[in-house]
Amino acid sequence: MSPVPLTLEGSSVLHQIFRFRWIAWRQLSLPERERVIDEAVELLESAEEGNGPPRPSQSALYSLIGHKGDLMMVHFRDTFEDLNQFELDLAQTDLYEYLEPTHSYVSVVELGLYESSAKTYAALAEKGLEPFTPAWDIEIKEVLARQSAAMAPRLYPAIPESKYLCFYPMDRRRGEQVNWYSVPMQDRQRMMHEHGLIGRRYADEVRQIISGSIGLDDWEWGVDLFAEDPVVFKKLIYEMRFDEVSAQYALFGKFYVGVRLKLSGLHHWLAGSLKPPPARI
Amino acid sequence: MSPVPLTLEGSSVLHQIFRFRWIAWRQLSLPERERVIDEAVELLESAEEGNGPPRPSQSALYSLIGHKGDLMMVHFRDTFEDLNQFELDLAQTDLYEYLEPTHSYVSVVELGLYESSAKTYAALAEKGLEPFTPAWDIEIKEVLARQSAAMAPRLYPAIPESKYLCFYPMDRRRGEQVNWYSVPMQDRQRMMHEHGLIGRRYADEVRQIISGSIGLDDWEWGVDLFAEDPVVFKKLIYEMRFDEVSAQYALFGKFYVGVRLKLSGLHHWLAGSLKPPPARI
Amino acid sequence: MSPVPLTLEGSSVLHQIFRFRWIAWRQLSLPERERVIDEAVELLESAEEGNGPPRPSQSALYSLIGHKGDLMMVHFRDTFEDLNQFELDLAQTDLYEYLEPTHSYVSVVELGLYESSAKTYAALAEKGLEPFTPAWDIEIKEVLARQSAAMAPRLYPAIPESKYLCFYPMDRRRGEQVNWYSVPMQDRQRMMHEHGLIGRRYADEVRQIISGSIGLDDWEWGVDLFAEDPVVFKKLIYEMRFDEVSAQYALFGKFYVGVRLKLSGLHHWLAGSLKPPPARI
Amino acid sequence: MSPVPLTLEGSSVLHQIFRFRWIAWRQLSLPERERVIDEAVELLESAEEGNGPPRPSQSALYSLIGHKGDLMMVHFRDTFEDLNQFELDLAQTDLYEYLEPTHSYVSVVELGLYESSAKTYAALAEKGLEPFTPAWDIEIKEVLARQSAAMAPRLYPAIPESKYLCFYPMDRRRGEQVNWYSVPMQDRQRMMHEHGLIGRRYADEVRQIISGSIGLDDWEWGVDLFAEDPVVFKKLIYEMRFDEVSAQYALFGKFYVGVRLKLSGLHHWLAGSLKPPPARI
Amino acid sequence: MSPVPLTLEGSSVLHQIFRFRWIAWRQLSLPERERVIDEAVELLESAEEGNGPPRPSQSALYSLIGHKGDLMMVHFRDTFEDLNQFELDLAQTDLYEYLEPTHSYVSVVELGLYESSAKTYAALAEKGLEPFTPAWDIEIKEVLARQSAAMAPRLYPAIPESKYLCFYPMDRRRGEQVNWYSVPMQDRQRMMHEHGLIGRRYADEVRQIISGSIGLDDWEWGVDLFAEDPVVFKKLIYEMRFDEVSAQYALFGKFYVGVRLKLSGLHHWLAGSLKPPPARI
Repeated sequence: MSPVPLTLEGSSVLHQIFRFRWIAWRQLSLPERERVIDEAVELLESAEEGNGPPRPSQSALYSLIGHKGDLMMVHFRDTFEDLNQFELDLAQTDLYEYLEPTHSYVSVVELGLYESSAKTYAALAEKGLEPFTPAWDIEIKEVLARQSAAMAPRLYPAIPESKYLCFYPMDRRRGEQVNWYSVPMQDRQRMMHEHGLIGRRYADEVRQIISGSIGLDDWEWGVDLFAEDPVVFKKLIYEMRFDEVSAQYALFGKFYVGVRLKLSGLHHWLAGSLKPPPARI
Repeated sequence: MSPVPLTLEGSSVLHQIFRFRWIAWRQLSLPERERVIDEAVELLESAEEGNGPPRPSQSALYSLIGHKGDLMMVHFRDTFEDLNQFELDLAQTDLYEYLEPTHSYVSVVELGLYESSAKTYAALAEKGLEPFTPAWDIEIKEVLARQSAAMAPRLYPAIPESKYLCFYPMDRRRGEQVNWYSVPMQDRQRMMHEHGLIGRRYADEVRQIISGSIGLDDWEWGVDLFAEDPVVFKKLIYEMRFDEVSAQYALFGKFYVGVRLKLSGLHHWLAGSLKPPPARI
Repeated sequence: MSPVPLTLEGSSVLHQIFRFRWIAWRQLSLPERERVIDEAVELLESAEEGNGPPRPSQSALYSLIGHKGDLMMVHFRDTFEDLNQFELDLAQTDLYEYLEPTHSYVSVVELGLYESSAKTYAALAEKGLEPFTPAWDIEIKEVLARQSAAMAPRLYPAIPESKYLCFYPMDRRRGEQVNWYSVPMQDRQRMMHEHGLIGRRYADEVRQIISGSIGLDDWEWGVDLFAEDPVVFKKLIYEMRFDEVSAQYALFGKFYVGVRLKLSGLHHWLAGSLKPPPARI
Repeated sequence: MSPVPLTLEGSSVLHQIFRFRWIAWRQLSLPERERVIDEAVELLESAEEGNGPPRPSQSALYSLIGHKGDLMMVHFRDTFEDLNQFELDLAQTDLYEYLEPTHSYVSVVELGLYESSAKTYAALAEKGLEPFTPAWDIEIKEVLARQSAAMAPRLYPAIPESKYLCFYPMDRRRGEQVNWYSVPMQDRQRMMHEHGLIGRRYADEVRQIISGSIGLDDWEWGVDLFAEDPVVFKKLIYEMRFDEVSAQYALFGKFYVGVRLKLSGLHHWLAGSLKPPPARI
Repeated sequence: MSPVPLTLEGSSVLHQIFRFRWIAWRQLSLPERERVIDEAVELLESAEEGNGPPRPSQSALYSLIGHKGDLMMVHFRDTFEDLNQFELDLAQTDLYEYLEPTHSYVSVVELGLYESSAKTYAALAEKGLEPFTPAWDIEIKEVLARQSAAMAPRLYPAIPESKYLCFYPMDRRRGEQVNWYSVPMQDRQRMMHEHGLIGRRYADEVRQIISGSIGLDDWEWGVDLFAEDPVVFKKLIYEMRFDEVSAQYALFGKFYVGVRLKLSGLHHWLAGSLKPPPARI
C-alpha cells in the first residue's frame, strides 16, 4: 500500500442548487413578494456577513447560467450540523416554496500536504518510528496541529467577492490500467507539484478553494474557482487538462457557472434583473 | 473456479430515503401537525426501541445533508417480510403524505469469513472430503452454525447511538483485466486482511456494519459507518482508498451523510430545528 | 463466426412494476375501495389461476421491498398480443389510477441447448450436411420440435408458489477484450455446464425461470428465482459470481425482490397488511 | 484515414413514442372521446394511407408492450420540415392532451454501399482520378444518382403491414482498442457482407428498414424490423450477435416492440382492446 | 506536459432548449395568446436583429424535431452577465409559462490556433525566451491580440440564415490508453489539420461555429452547424467519423436538429404551423 498523504480539514461546505419557480412567483402580488423577500433576507443576511475571522462561516448567492439551476447558495460552516440546520431554516421560509432543489454538494475544505507528508514520513522513518505506532501517531498529530494553525485562514476561508464562480466536482481516476491510488507517493507528489505551478500562474486572476468529499458525497473533491472574468475558468482548466495529473488521472462532474448575487441585489433579481435599476436623481 | 468464502447472514436491513414535502407540511395547522406526528411516533417509537438483545431489530432516523434526501430511516429486522410490513405500515400513516421516497437499499447483515473459510477448506481437504459432497456439506454447516452463534451480536446488531451516519453501497470490480472474482482465494484473503487492519485503527472512532446485497439490490454490499465526527468518514475512506483491495477492486455508489434524529427530536425537526429549544427555567 | 447455440422458446413474459399511490388511495372511502378492488379482482383472478397445463398462462402479484416499486405483476402468456391486451385491460380498471408504472420487462421463456446443439451440429457435419442448406434446416427443425415437445413443461411453466421472488435482467459481456460472443462454442458450452452445476446444488431451495429478451427488451436475459428464504438468492448468486462464465461474462441490471401476494390477500395488502388479520373466534 | 463508404439517403423518418394518459382519458364522457378520436383520425388517416409510390410517405401506429410507452408512431416523409410539421399538427389535436412524449428518434432511410463503393473507388483510382478532385466528385455523383434511381423503392419504402415491429438504435463501437472507424475498408466490407448473409436467410420472415442518424440523433443508426412473429426478432438478433461485426462492433440502445394498430382499430384500442369486438349476427 | 495550443475567445453563447406546453397554451383564448406573443416578440425582436457588426450579439429560434425539445433559442452575447440577464428577462414574460427548460449549453466562441501556436512557440524558443517568463508572456499576448483583431468576424459571428441547425457538444477522449491530452502537440496539430480539410470540402454547404466550454459546461466543446439540407449534417459528420482525430479521440453528446423559426413566423408556429398560411388574393 502506497503511503497516504496527510490532509488538513477546515470548514464544512454545502453547495445548494435550485431552480426558481418563476411562474408561481410571478403569481404573487408585489406586497406578498416583499413579505417573502423580507423574511428570506432576515435569514440570509447574517449568513452573508458571517462571523469574520478566524472562522468567517459565510454564505453567498449566485445567479446560475443555464437550465441546471437558477440560484446557487454556497455555505461555509463550522460543522455539518450547522449546515443541516441552515437547510432546515431555509425550508421554513416562504421563499422555499419557489426554490426547487436540483443539486447539492457536501464537502469539507481540504488542504493536501503532499510535500510535508513526504518530509514528515521520511523524518519519522529516520528516527526509527514505525508507522501507526503510538509514538508515530503523536508526532503526526503534532505536525497536523502545527500546519492547521499555520494554514487556518485557508482552512476557514472567507468567500471571495469575485463576480463569477465556477463549481465542479472531480475524481482521481481508478481505472483498470491507470489508477491514481496505485501510483507511488513520490510520483503523485511530483505531479501535484507541477499541477500547482499552473494554478500559481493564474493566482492573480483566480481564487481557488478545494474541498474534499470522499465519504461525504459522490465525487472525491469539489472545486470552487472565483474570478472577475469567466473566460479565465476556461483558460485555466484547459491548460491544466494537459498536465500529467489531469490528463491521466482527472475525471470531472458537472460544471456550474454563476454570477455573484449580493443579498442587496436579491430584490432586483427576483424582479428579473441582475443589476439594480439606475439611481434616480 | 476460485473458492467462495463462507459468509454468515443476520438481520434483514432496509434503508429508506425520503425528501420531505416541507411546502405541503407547512400548510398544515399546528394541531393537524401534532396529530400527524403523534400517529407517526406511535409507529416509530417501538421501532426505535426495538426488542433488545439477542435480536434488537431496531430502526433509526437521520436528518440528511444535501438534496438527495431530507430523512433516512434505517431498519434492522428478522425477515424481509417484517421490512416490507414496516413499509406498508408507514404508508398508512398521514406523515407518509409528506415523505417522497427517493432511494432505498435492501440487504442483510453479513460477515465474510475469509480466514476461517480458508482454514476450514484446508482442514476438510486434509480429511479427504470432496467439496459439495454430503459429508463436506455437513461439516460446513457445523462451522457456519458455530460461527453464527459466536458472532450473533454482530449479526444482529443494535444501532449505535453515534451522532453521524455515513451510508454507501459498493461493488467489487469485475473489469476486463481487473476482476475480483477471478483473483485466487489466497490473494483475496490477504487483501481483505490488510483492509481490515485500517478499519481496526479507526475502531475507537467509527462503528461499521456491513450488509450484503448480491441478489437483493443493485450493488453487492452496503456500508454503514457511525461516528461522532463526520470528518472521520472522510479520513477513514480516504486512507482505505490506497489499500490494494480498495484501490484496485472497489467501486462506490452514492454517499449519504446524516445527523441522528432521535424520535424525541422529531417534533423539533418537523418545526425546522435539529435541536430542542433551550429549556425554560 | 462462432456457432450459435440452438434455443427453444415458450411463454411470452411480461414483468410490470408499479409504485402504488398510497396517498390518493387512502383518500377513497372504504366502500369506494371495495368497489375498486372487486373490479380489479375480477380481472386478476382468472389470470392468477390460469389455464392449467399444458399452457398455464398464469399471472402472479408480488409486494416489493424498497423504493423501486411497491407491486410487481408477472405474466406468462401464449403471445405478445395477449400480454399487450392484459396491459390494456388493466389500464381500464379503476385500480390503475393508483398504479404508477416504474419499470417493466418483456421476454420469452428460453431454454438454451448448448449440449444438444453441439451434438446436433457434429452429427449433421458427419452426415456431410452444410449449415443453412435446406437439408440441414430440416434436420435442425426436427431437433427443435422434438426438444420443444420434451421440454414443454419448462417452456410453458406454471408460476411456483414460493414466498419470495427475485427478478433481474442480465447480459453476457461484449467488452473490447472479454467478449462472450467471440468465445469458441466449445468453451461457452463448458462454462455453461459448470454454471449449471451450481444451480443444481440449489435445486431444492430455488426454482429458476430464464427468459430471453434479445430484440425484445434492453438486456439479453431475464432471470426469475423463486424461494422460501430470500437469503438463498444472495447465497446462490454470490457463489455463481465466482464461476467462470459469471465472473468474466455476466453483467447485471437492477434486482427486484418481492413477497408473493396471493389475490386473496390483495384486500389486506391494500389496507396495509401483508397478512390477513387473525381470525376471530 | 480509411475510405468512407458511399451512402444513399431516402425518406426522412421520425419515431414518436408516447405514454397514454389512461386515467385522464377515462374521465372523458363517451361523446367527448368520440369527438377527440374523430379529430385525430382526420389527421392520421391520410398519413396512414400516404401518397403511394414512388414516395409513399406513410405513417403507422403501434401498441407498445411494456412501460417504455403505450403508443409508437412511425413517420416517413420527404423532408425534415414535413416531419416537424406533423409534430406540430399532432400537438394541435385534442388527443395530444393524452399523449405524453417519452422518446423519439430522428433519422433518414440509408443504404450503405460498401460493395459498390469499393468497386467505384478502385475504378476511379485506375482511371488516375485523385479523391475529392472535381473530376472524381463528378464521377461519384453519377454513381450515387444511378444507384439512387435503381434503389428508389428501398429508399422511399412503404411501411410493411406486418403484425409486429421491433425498433432499436445502434452504434458501431469506437473503443480504445476495438474501433470500427479505424478498421480498413476492406475488412469492414467483408464483415458487412457476412452480416448481410444472416439477414438474407431471414428475408421471408423479417422486413428490415435501416435509417442513419449520425448528426441527427443520439445513435448512429436506427433499425426497424417487421415480422408476423416477434420471436423471430429474438432469433435473428441473437444469431447476428455472434457474427464478427456485431460481436465486436455493435452497441445497442433501447428496444421497442409493438403490435401494429391500424387506424381502423384506434377506437377499440382507446376502449382498451387490441381487436374489434366480434361482429354481432 | 505537452504544449497547450493557444485559443481565441469571442462571443459568450447560450443554447436554451424548451419543451412547449401545448396543452396549457391551447387553453388560452386567442386574444390572450396574442397578448402573450406580443410581449415575447417585444423582448425577442431586438435580440433577433442584434447590434450588427462588429459584435452582432444576435439570438435565433429553431423549431426542434423529436421529443428532446420543441424550441431552441441560441444566443450570442458579449458577456455571461448579458446571457444571464436574457434568461431573467425571458422568465419574466408570460410566454415563459409555456416553456419548460429541458436542456441548455453554456460556452464561448473559440478559435483554436494549432498552427500559429506551433510557429509562435518555435519562434520564441529560437529567441531564447523561456515559456511563462514575463518576456514570453508579453509576446504571447501580442500574438493573441493580433490574431483576435484579424479574426474578429469569426469570433463575434452573426447567426447564419440557413434553414436547418444541428447542435451537439463533444469531448476529446481521455481514455486509459487513448488520451488526446497526452498526444504530442505536433501530432495533435497534424490531426486537426486533416480534420479541417474535410470541413473545407463542405464549406459551400455548411457553416460551422465552434464554441469552447471547458470549465463552463459539461462537455469540452459545442458545435453548431448551419445548412439548407439536413442530410448534409449526416454526410459531413459521417465522413469526419473516419478521420483520425474523430475516430480515435471524439466523444459526442446529444444531437439537436431544428428548423429556423424567424420571429415573424412565431405567430404561425404557436398556431401549429411552420409556415405562414398562403396569402389571400
